[in-house]
Amino acid sequence: MPSFTVYKGSKDGSIQKAETSKPELSNDQVLVKITASGLCGTDEHYRHADMVLGHEGAAVVEQLGPNVKFLKKGDRVGWGYEHDSCGHCEYCLTGRETFCPERAMYGMADLDQGSFASHAVWREAFLFKIPDELTDAEAAPLMCGGATVFNALRMYNIQPTDRVGVLGVGGLGHLAIQFASKMGCDVVVFSGTESKKEEAMKLGATEFVAMKGKKELSIGRPINCLLVTTSAQPDWNLMVPVMAPDSIIFPLTVSEGNFSVPYMPLILNGIRIQGSVVASRNIHRRMLEFAAQHGIKPINMEFPMNEEGITKAMKTLEDGNMRYRGVLIPGKA
Amino acid sequence: MPSFTVYKGSKDGSIQKAETSKPELSNDQVLVKITASGLCGTDEHYRHADMVLGHEGAAVVEQLGPNVKFLKKGDRVGWGYEHDSCGHCEYCLTGRETFCPERAMYGMADLDQGSFASHAVWREAFLFKIPDELTDAEAAPLMCGGATVFNALRMYNIQPTDRVGVLGVGGLGHLAIQFASKMGCDVVVFSGTESKKEEAMKLGATEFVAMKGKKELSIGRPINCLLVTTSAQPDWNLMVPVMAPDSIIFPLTVSEGNFSVPYMPLILNGIRIQGSVVASRNIHRRMLEFAAQHGIKPINMEFPMNEEGITKAMKTLEDGNMRYRGVLIPGKA
Repeated sequence: MPSFTVYKGSKDGSIQKAETSKPELSNDQVLVKITASGLCGTDEHYRHADMVLGHEGAAVVEQLGPNVKFLKKGDRVGWGYEHDSCGHCEYCLTGRETFCPERAMYGMADLDQGSFASHAVWREAFLFKIPDELTDAEAAPLMCGGATVFNALRMYNIQPTDRVGVLGVGGLGHLAIQFASKMGCDVVVFSGTESKKEEAMKLGATEFVAMKGKKELSIGRPINCLLVTTSAQPDWNLMVPVMAPDSIIFPLTVSEGNFSVPYMPLILNGIRIQGSVVASRNIHRRMLEFAAQHGIKPINMEFPMNEEGITKAMKTLEDGNMRYRGVLIPGKA
Repeated sequence: MPSFTVYKGSKDGSIQKAETSKPELSNDQVLVKITASGLCGTDEHYRHADMVLGHEGAAVVEQLGPNVKFLKKGDRVGWGYEHDSCGHCEYCLTGRETFCPERAMYGMADLDQGSFASHAVWREAFLFKIPDELTDAEAAPLMCGGATVFNALRMYNIQPTDRVGVLGVGGLGHLAIQFASKMGCDVVVFSGTESKKEEAMKLGATEFVAMKGKKELSIGRPINCLLVTTSAQPDWNLMVPVMAPDSIIFPLTVSEGNFSVPYMPLILNGIRIQGSVVASRNIHRRMLEFAAQHGIKPINMEFPMNEEGITKAMKTLEDGNMRYRGVLIPGKA
């Protein structure tokens, strides 16, 4: 039986090379050859698990299962965090399949596959064609990072007339600034220090707030929507006063414990805390089209797709030195 | 100058009778003679403040200011938590005047007036006609308690096909069950013990869950919306598993400190925490019409509107013995 190379987490956190046997393609399954994979903060969380890492894949279609209808050999495709859903529950039937109770999520099913690999087998139904305007390396970080920030803005009807806050300029944040800005929103960036100010303004922000040491934030018009893209939670007593009444807070990163905000300001100002992860397929498609149309691209640091490359990329992310998304490239020297 | 009687909080928590001088009526101000006032949990919070208590008023119009247009002497009217707003900000212009930054909220402005009184002077613009189907004593608790639960359901577009959870059977909860049930929703009530089960089912619930001592809740279909009407917050690790993906939690009571929920379930299930207080005027009107149409009425315990009556009502509420809303009636023996 043929097999392909995968890179897994392990108990001691070291990256392990392994082989996964390629199944006989059934139904709408597609064999893809991976050309690029983004590195997401979530991969760090699974680093100590015995599973294949990576969920921001870009690839070329290599072989088609018997019921594949739309893809053909050579097509450039990508995929993100979730790879399957039931197709018949109320969420699947209303374009919200990320809420399907039977969805197969990264880290919960398919432990033998991921985008840190030479190949993967996924269902055609959950692969997305990459627009011509985007290279594979540019498309990969959009598959989770891009989808996560775009979904918050699109699914919850953020308006072009809204003032949007982006907390954190990293893998998610630097994409959020671009998407919100190209949607016509006025974008305020909140960051620790001034160090990323120039970059943030270039990406489309109109205001930049360095938070470190501040007892109170002074911004122009209060914000209608806040995308929290930092892994650490902010001091909400500092942030809530710059939120407009009837505004939305999106916590977008993986975190442990509780989400806590001051109670009375939440109630009195009608603030909404909206949980949100990645995108259902229709919104994912719109995200790729929108990125292609507006030239929205991640700023990448590339690493070789092998044990050393993955380890180095993870170290760079961990040290806070990624500017702004790590991408692993098979065959890169 | 003529004056009227009011009842205030005080440092030691005792209820003090006082006199407020009646201003010369200007603009669209109306002098009303109070006929009933609900007692809300919030009054307990202001019991130690030097301000007139009560914000669930029912009254009869006694005298009109020079620019009053719609009301006439003898009209039965009510009012709730908020009594004014600017009329020109984006919130006022979009029917969301409860978010007006210049709104005059109970306990923040008008300290010399309230519904624990013989009379009050309010703007016509913030008085609501009481429908013929409701007595004054029935209408009073709707002005804050009813408006609070109805606003959550109406403003945030809860659907008749939704399964609605009501946590707590008290002043707010017993109205929430009726409103949601008459809107066509399937209503699940969560309470400490079985003691209020029969009442809850009579009010329109289809399922009743006694939570005390439970390590896990077993209900039918997960709920799409939860109205938290208890002053204490529930164990969210118990509640979150019965929330459907893409569902809404409304914390509706006044509380201190932080609002905290488990982070990952919030994110993964796309749960929304929606702050909400009382209703803007259009929704308040719809609430009164809907209550009149469907015979939605509070279950009241009546007390005399005087120092002793207010004190006794507060004690009854504090002891958890109110079934289900206290109403103060001037002149009651």
